Amino acid sequence: MLRPLLLLTVVWGAAQTARAAAPVLMPLPVKVEAAPGKLAVDGSFSVAATGYSDVRLESALKRFVARVSRQTGIPMLSASPSEASRAMLRVECTARGDEDPSLGEDESYQLDVAPEGARLKAATVAGALHGLETFAQLVVPGAEGFHVPAIHIQDRPRFPWRGLMLDVSRHWMPVEVVERNLDAMAAVKLNVFHWHLSDDQGFRVESRRFPRLQQLGSDGDFYTQAEIRHVVAYARGRGIRVEPEFDMPGHTNSWLVGYPELASAPGPYSIGRTWGVYDGAMDPTREETYEFLDAFLGEMTPLFSDPYFHIGGDEVNARQWSQSPSIQAFARDHKLEGARDLQVYFNQRIQKLLRKYGKIMVGWDEVLHPDLPADTVVQSWRGQASLAEAASKGHRGILSAGYYLDHLSPASYHYGIDPLADAARKLTPEEASRILGGEACMWAEYANAETVDSRIWPRAAVIAERLWSPKEAATDVASMYARMEAVSRVLEWTGVRHRANYGPMLDRLAAGRPAEPLRVLADACEAQGLGPRARAMKYTSLVPLNRFVDAVRPESETVRALEQAAGRLDIAPLRQQFTRWAGNDARFEPLAKDNALLAEIKPLSQDLSALGAMGLRILDYLQGKRPAPRAWLSAQTKELDRMLKPRNEVVLAAVRPVKVLLEDARRGRK
Amino acid sequence: MLRPLLLLTVVWGAAQTARAAAPVLMPLPVKVEAAPGKLAVDGSFSVAATGYSDVRLESALKRFVARVSRQTGIPMLSASPSEASRAMLRVECTARGDEDPSLGEDESYQLDVAPEGARLKAATVAGALHGLETFAQLVVPGAEGFHVPAIHIQDRPRFPWRGLMLDVSRHWMPVEVVERNLDAMAAVKLNVFHWHLSDDQGFRVESRRFPRLQQLGSDGDFYTQAEIRHVVAYARGRGIRVEPEFDMPGHTNSWLVGYPELASAPGPYSIGRTWGVYDGAMDPTREETYEFLDAFLGEMTPLFSDPYFHIGGDEVNARQWSQSPSIQAFARDHKLEGARDLQVYFNQRIQKLLRKYGKIMVGWDEVLHPDLPADTVVQSWRGQASLAEAASKGHRGILSAGYYLDHLSPASYHYGIDPLADAARKLTPEEASRILGGEACMWAEYANAETVDSRIWPRAAVIAERLWSPKEAATDVASMYARMEAVSRVLEWTGVRHRANYGPMLDRLAAGRPAEPLRVLADACEAQGLGPRARAMKYTSLVPLNRFVDAVRPESETVRALEQAAGRLDIAPLRQQFTRWAGNDARFEPLAKDNALLAEIKPLSQDLSALGAMGLRILDYLQGKRPAPRAWLSAQTKELDRMLKPRNEVVLAAVRPVKVLLEDARRGRK
Repeated sequence: MLRPLLLLTVVWGAAQTARAAAPVLMPLPVKVEAAPGKLAVDGSFSVAATGYSDVRLESALKRFVARVSRQTGIPMLSASPSEASRAMLRVECTARGDEDPSLGEDESYQLDVAPEGARLKAATVAGALHGLETFAQLVVPGAEGFHVPAIHIQDRPRFPWRGLMLDVSRHWMPVEVVERNLDAMAAVKLNVFHWHLSDDQGFRVESRRFPRLQQLGSDGDFYTQAEIRHVVAYARGRGIRVEPEFDMPGHTNSWLVGYPELASAPGPYSIGRTWGVYDGAMDPTREETYEFLDAFLGEMTPLFSDPYFHIGGDEVNARQWSQSPSIQAFARDHKLEGARDLQVYFNQRIQKLLRKYGKIMVGWDEVLHPDLPADTVVQSWRGQASLAEAASKGHRGILSAGYYLDHLSPASYHYGIDPLADAARKLTPEEASRILGGEACMWAEYANAETVDSRIWPRAAVIAERLWSPKEAATDVASMYARMEAVSRVLEWTGVRHRANYGPMLDRLAAGRPAEPLRVLADACEAQGLGPRARAMKYTSLVPLNRFVDAVRPESETVRALEQAAGRLDIAPLRQQFTRWAGNDARFEPLAKDNALLAEIKPLSQDLSALGAMGLRILDYLQGKRPAPRAWLSAQTKELDRMLKPRNEVVLAAVRPVKVLLEDARRGRK
Repeated sequence: MLRPLLLLTVVWGAAQTARAAAPVLMPLPVKVEAAPGKLAVDGSFSVAATGYSDVRLESALKRFVARVSRQTGIPMLSASPSEASRAMLRVECTARGDEDPSLGEDESYQLDVAPEGARLKAATVAGALHGLETFAQLVVPGAEGFHVPAIHIQDRPRFPWRGLMLDVSRHWMPVEVVERNLDAMAAVKLNVFHWHLSDDQGFRVESRRFPRLQQLGSDGDFYTQAEIRHVVAYARGRGIRVEPEFDMPGHTNSWLVGYPELASAPGPYSIGRTWGVYDGAMDPTREETYEFLDAFLGEMTPLFSDPYFHIGGDEVNARQWSQSPSIQAFARDHKLEGARDLQVYFNQRIQKLLRKYGKIMVGWDEVLHPDLPADTVVQSWRGQASLAEAASKGHRGILSAGYYLDHLSPASYHYGIDPLADAARKLTPEEASRILGGEACMWAEYANAETVDSRIWPRAAVIAERLWSPKEAATDVASMYARMEAVSRVLEWTGVRHRANYGPMLDRLAAGRPAEPLRVLADACEAQGLGPRARAMKYTSLVPLNRFVDAVRPESETVRALEQAAGRLDIAPLRQQFTRWAGNDARFEPLAKDNALLAEIKPLSQDLSALGAMGLRILDYLQGKRPAPRAWLSAQTKELDRMLKPRNEVVLAAVRPVKVLLEDARRGRK
């Protein structure tokens, strides 16, 4: 629990030592050198640009002061940039950078903090923005108030493409959800927002040319073109490229509602309400399809300033194609063998349209094919092998396999995934250089505007570190978790609601009564992700995500702290928590009475209390009052195994520390 | 803790009895009759207007469905009004009401909920809006999912003027703070937003005619005219009148920075940074003052649609007037005796200007004078006596004395204040009818955008009940607290952050580490208000409000629950909480290390743990293990008295339940 404190002490106490390379920053910088002293941050804090500057930097400096003010709670009137000579933080861009964030631009920065003032030096605005975020993370309250420790940081990213994909089709994500997640992305130096704008369950952009797309394909939940432009500008201001994705030719049910003539089989079509792969696919053989898409892309491409444009291309269901005589005839005529070739043909046609509009095509693994133009970027949901294959064939690629946030895997799992590991290790340096980075993916079958932040954050910060920090510097999982917990709290000041929405969701479940017993239970559980949820019950987009599993987080901080305490046999916190658990079901039970939402987790609550009682008894044994009977130990082991089985789409994570102690008792450790 | 549940059971179990008059609603309706059965609220929930309708009602219905969807977590696609015949809730307005909310309009409604559907009948949109809020409060999760119990409600307000005053001058409150508080106001049927827009510390509206007002008088924090119009429209949509206040001729320091010629003594002036009454006052004797104010009011009055316009008029410091030979000469010439008469002269001039612009003047107590035009409304911060005096002289009045939220008094105190009590009792019915209602006041010396919601809510809901509900129906303090706690949670869905900002503020204090021990301490404390804070240290508007006292709430739910448990000697929760307190300081101490913000409350934390230990020992005595020694009891009494003394601007409220138990132990109760 106290690891962040320990780290701080170690780092700032032992300046100039090797351990100074691990301050409470995420992502970790390339080089960190602690120095003596600190820079006080108080109401007179000010910042100014001393080198090249532009509207983007000036806005960022204003936002930065407001952010530091919010983070510290200190009023800072000098929200407008100060005179350079008097500013406590001077920001020097040495060159005029691009107006838009661009792939591969120089994102490096150097930050020097001394007791007299701080200096941030960067080649371009992009680097300056990153340096400001590093500075913000360094602001901590100390014995004399808020300060930044004296420090020298040199930093640059390992990969140029560090993204977050957000699915806004399966569940609708209003503009404010996108905005706050862009702010959080910037805080951990992610630089690509991949916006999954259409899928079977919703077409989310206003088209004026083809208005039935959003009118019939979105349930009224879509972004106006003004909102799209606003988001692109909002992201630009934060150094983030926006890459739109219109998935085609499959995953297009929502298009076909209003434009069934695009499909390979007669309609009518309706908006998808369930998950999985639908039959509906565009007809790749009709010229009218390309006329439509030409006009459509002609309308959409100017809304986005970034040259990269994602066409999806994943999971095409070939059923309609194989059942259509005309499509089969076309395939024969054009010597296209099977669905695979038909999709390649489709991709080539789209790629030409995109090139006409000045865009570079990006697609999922499936687009890879010998005839694919070399500049196409392949995004891999399958793994490093297909990424390596693409790279060896001259394509650039980005990794998403292993970075699927909606699986609700532990942060440590994502931390262990590297775009250049496994199959990618065998690549030549030139081939390896084609691997541009990766993207965390947030598919939204089981997340909505209320819950999505807690499915993205703080775990996406760990992926951000994997993509930014030198591989060899970012290896310590314990340090990662300690820093992730601290950064999770810093992220609150960006407006993202991964922590804020927890309380109201528990309050809803508690039906207006104090939710404390429910919180104790939720803190002891971990939510399951896509696979288990899909198997648990029949979900549709209309099934409420208001249950216990939706409030519960992917990883439990409480349990992690207890596992650490169990590891070092720190009795006091274990006893305290077990006592609380033991008594919790008696308090939970009245809350759950006549409450449909809580009825399902009654057994879980009973197990938590049983677990608390068991933990207390094990502690008694471990503290040597009497030896644990063998038979009792075996019975408890079985009981723990039973309790570890997921129920109601959650795992009783609290079992884990008790299991550690039970092993200790079995081995006779004291 | 379980009182809301008990109430529910009593009410819905005992339909048709007198106790059915107390469902979990705030404010309490005039008449409530429970009926058998309930109306299920699920994804097919829909609403439609069946009588007179307008844009305001249609928008309200859409917002209402979105609100119920948010509150329940159930996706509701039918966000647009349904066909009347199929709607589950049919809303019938029987007359076309005013476009704007207006003083004294018919706000009554009747709500009938049956298992087959619900019907809301109202004379005007105003009543319909109130009925929708009642319906939203009735939506609860039950054994089979969310529902509204079958019920018959007839309702209308006791007073037509039910306001909340918000000071945006002392600390700046951005538009989103105003918006979310308007939503919360609507949820408890408050209908006047009194916007204190200028004071010594800030002039908060854009004037195009006199731009130095905001340019030099606001630190850049002001509302544009577009924002003012937006807020007025936002409030209108929620049935809320907006009454602006420009305080004059005193409390005008921020005006005088840019326009020192308005003052009664030469400048220069600067924005006020401390609190209290400044010397600066407008010169009531110069024609130029009125020329300025004529143009100013000519520009400002059209921004606000409501006819009532507040000119403040409080706390004029007469020093500048008495020291000015020209003002003294003017007074002699016009037979004005002293500052009082000068202010009356000023008010009369302003009143004429306001009348020219179609406005009715409102002012604080001090404006009362025999020559005051009869239509002027007097707002009393002094008490019912001055309100009664005004009423007896033919003026209408509103009460604010006793409703000052920034004093952080308990809700029960505000609940005990009645506009028609005390001196007002002696009024004739006609005179009494001039007392229009009251306003809760939120002065912002010790509140900012982050903390203000927790200073307003949920206590303002109690004042709303006092002003809406029949006096004789709203008397049970225990019921009030039980309902306030439930409604506090319902208010979360309006967006107001009184609960949401608690966690982040504690996280800030905990410097990125788990804040749990700090939360235990904060839950056991209560923050002090204006008076004690002013005496505690020298505050200015630049002193950060980021300390423990700012996170702590005015009233502790935890302590209230314990007091109830102590009252009925319910040992289990007492023992559990005391145990937690007893062990808390050991967990708090590492958090407070090297943390300037937490250093001050170390003694408080030590006391909480001592209190826990003391409580446990008293419980042991009470449970009869051994009698409590007299000497020990006396020593503990002294110790509790010491601990009850406020420190660091907070009160260790946790002392109260222990005190109850100590009294029990003294009396030998078991």
